Amino acid sequence: MRENLTENLLIAQSGGPTAAINSSVSGIIVEAKQQRKVGSIYGAINGILGVLNEELVDLRQEDPSTISMLRKTPSAAFGSSRYKLREDDYVRLLQVFAAHNISYFLFAGGNDSMSTAHKVAQLASERNYDLNVIGVPKTVDNDLMVTDHCPGYGSVARFNAIAVRDSGLDTEAIYTTDAVKIIETMGRDTGWITASTALGKEGVDSAPHLIYLPEHPFVATRFLADVKSIYDRLGRVVICICEGLRDEKGEFVKASTKQIDTDKFGHVQLGGVGDYLVNLVSENLKIKARCDKPGTIQRVSMACASQIDLDEAYLVGKAAISQAVAGESDKMVTLIRKTNDPYECKTGLVELEKVALLTKKVPNEFINKESNFITKQFLEYARPLIGGPLPEYAHLEKKTVKRRLSARA
Amino acid sequence: MRENLTENLLIAQSGGPTAAINSSVSGIIVEAKQQRKVGSIYGAINGILGVLNEELVDLRQEDPSTISMLRKTPSAAFGSSRYKLREDDYVRLLQVFAAHNISYFLFAGGNDSMSTAHKVAQLASERNYDLNVIGVPKTVDNDLMVTDHCPGYGSVARFNAIAVRDSGLDTEAIYTTDAVKIIETMGRDTGWITASTALGKEGVDSAPHLIYLPEHPFVATRFLADVKSIYDRLGRVVICICEGLRDEKGEFVKASTKQIDTDKFGHVQLGGVGDYLVNLVSENLKIKARCDKPGTIQRVSMACASQIDLDEAYLVGKAAISQAVAGESDKMVTLIRKTNDPYECKTGLVELEKVALLTKKVPNEFINKESNFITKQFLEYARPLIGGPLPEYAHLEKKTVKRRLSARA
Repeated sequence: MRENLTENLLIAQSGGPTAAINSSVSGIIVEAKQQRKVGSIYGAINGILGVLNEELVDLRQEDPSTISMLRKTPSAAFGSSRYKLREDDYVRLLQVFAAHNISYFLFAGGNDSMSTAHKVAQLASERNYDLNVIGVPKTVDNDLMVTDHCPGYGSVARFNAIAVRDSGLDTEAIYTTDAVKIIETMGRDTGWITASTALGKEGVDSAPHLIYLPEHPFVATRFLADVKSIYDRLGRVVICICEGLRDEKGEFVKASTKQIDTDKFGHVQLGGVGDYLVNLVSENLKIKARCDKPGTIQRVSMACASQIDLDEAYLVGKAAISQAVAGESDKMVTLIRKTNDPYECKTGLVELEKVALLTKKVPNEFINKESNFITKQFLEYARPLIGGPLPEYAHLEKKTVKRRLSARA
Repeated sequence: MRENLTENLLIAQSGGPTAAINSSVSGIIVEAKQQRKVGSIYGAINGILGVLNEELVDLRQEDPSTISMLRKTPSAAFGSSRYKLREDDYVRLLQVFAAHNISYFLFAGGNDSMSTAHKVAQLASERNYDLNVIGVPKTVDNDLMVTDHCPGYGSVARFNAIAVRDSGLDTEAIYTTDAVKIIETMGRDTGWITASTALGKEGVDSAPHLIYLPEHPFVATRFLADVKSIYDRLGRVVICICEGLRDEKGEFVKASTKQIDTDKFGHVQLGGVGDYLVNLVSENLKIKARCDKPGTIQRVSMACASQIDLDEAYLVGKAAISQAVAGESDKMVTLIRKTNDPYECKTGLVELEKVALLTKKVPNEFINKESNFITKQFLEYARPLIGGPLPEYAHLEKKTVKRRLSARA
């Protein structure tokens, strides 16, 4: 029935899953159904690979309640991939688009994906194929340029704020035996995720006590001095580190001598920095340390997702298809912060070439002078994104009972 | 005002914190206030160490709303410890009890703590010191004898069921590049926690695909064959393993050659089995693998706690002080499952010597013949403990769009 309409839409998800990417897809589908120009709505199985292999699913056949439930469903509903396109793949993409009358191509992902989307748009333009390509920002890494922040980040930030607060209470309770805890977060090239753990800090002595980002070189001697200083004062230390920490030579800080293979984009797959630092602390300071590494759990946790993040992801999805239908192409939807208190955000657009392959690092004003914590400016930036305060816990007064005995021998 | 009443209560928390231990403390305090015989209500700072050091806090001075909020506060509100008592410490304990007119001593912990409580009760009896000692079961490990299950377990089980389901969706979405995921759970000697990940499995092909418990020896060749078999069928494998996995010689399976120091009870501190297996898979099967290790986050997550668990912990706390006031001593509160469907539990009592230092392993009928998954009987046992179904997610129909091109070259 819809087959005679030529302006079909194809959605593809790319890169690591998040808690919010399906919310963007939900927004795209709901808005696309409102747009009379949009014919079929297709999804590509496992991202760009699904386009190349012509493995598409018909999203108009999904129940509206399922589409609505995508707003609360983590991961990537019809799959993702990290496939790096070869030059001749782009020609194949256009063949698939032509075979299915695709007029709108929405690609959700990070800076690699925006590069792919940009090349697709360029090639279509060169070959006079009428295609509107819009990038949908999605990355827990929060490292896309121009946009104030990226859908997916607020949720991973909330997960880590809660996890570090909880895990900090654990250390506080039992610091007599488990004094140093290292929590390793994701973050290949940037410290946005690691920085978010500071949102779990409730008081000057509560966790996290130290935060190390890859934006500044990691110096083991300074690190050990920092740890010792906190330990001497409190008897416990909770340290948040980024999997992508690098030393002064720019080499990854890690335990294993085994080089785990690089991914398809040539990015090194990381692992081991947390365990490495556990050993460093144990051996040099003679304090027992342990490491928590939530790994992929952090990026797909719906139980700790940020409602603001989920809502913004939905909004970004709606804006993406609206702009495509309005004739925009070769652009990515952005989030523009209008006001911080009360927090208000609107969507914008930016040329894909201004975000493709570029990485937004955590700026210096967000990192303290000692390179071992974040600043108040970072908290002001990140606090609204996690969707309200963390759940409240009891804090006992702990009124001391007067001693009646002499001290224990 | 209360000082003239001689029957004071002392509460101490022991071992690793949980999501539910404060709920037990809340139950104890609320019930103690109803008991006319109970004078002051004290808490020991950092468990048994606080008793030895005479560091007590007055819990009657806490606001009732704070005590109520303890039911939703993870970790151990006035601290815990793993201190192993020396013989002469027991005498000191009695001196502190006498100095503060302690008649009721409630000790929350696992099998080590129940041994401590038993020795305290025995010594008091020998010395004609009138003391009612009741053990309050608390351990995420779920390895206490006699009791059907332990407060704290339902919550860590719910956390892991959710985490593995979410993390499994992550792998399912991006298995084209991250095909094998290993999730390392806690569990020093038993596989109860690891087994609980099976509660997150939604369908025959969904995560987790393989589960390995320390109750059966880990055989690397069998493990690799299991992984290959699932991988060949699905292209992805989510494997849940226990930190305490042991090989056929009874040695811990681990990556590091460095022996991390043992804790005060002589238990070896574990770590590294997940990374070890990542390397084993990568090297032998040439498949990219990664490891998630939520660590202490799993045992203190209130966001994923089981309401049933929190409620039972509260009930167990109330029963502990009621029984102590009724004259019981040298006993631990147990949970007795009356019916499974509908699930109903009541509290009971058992002699401390029947639980002290003993470990309840996952029984053979809960582990499959291949030693690589759990059985339906385990699911029936564990399902009610996690407090209701997991949050519902969208499942797309994924109706395939007909191909119009020949296959990609």
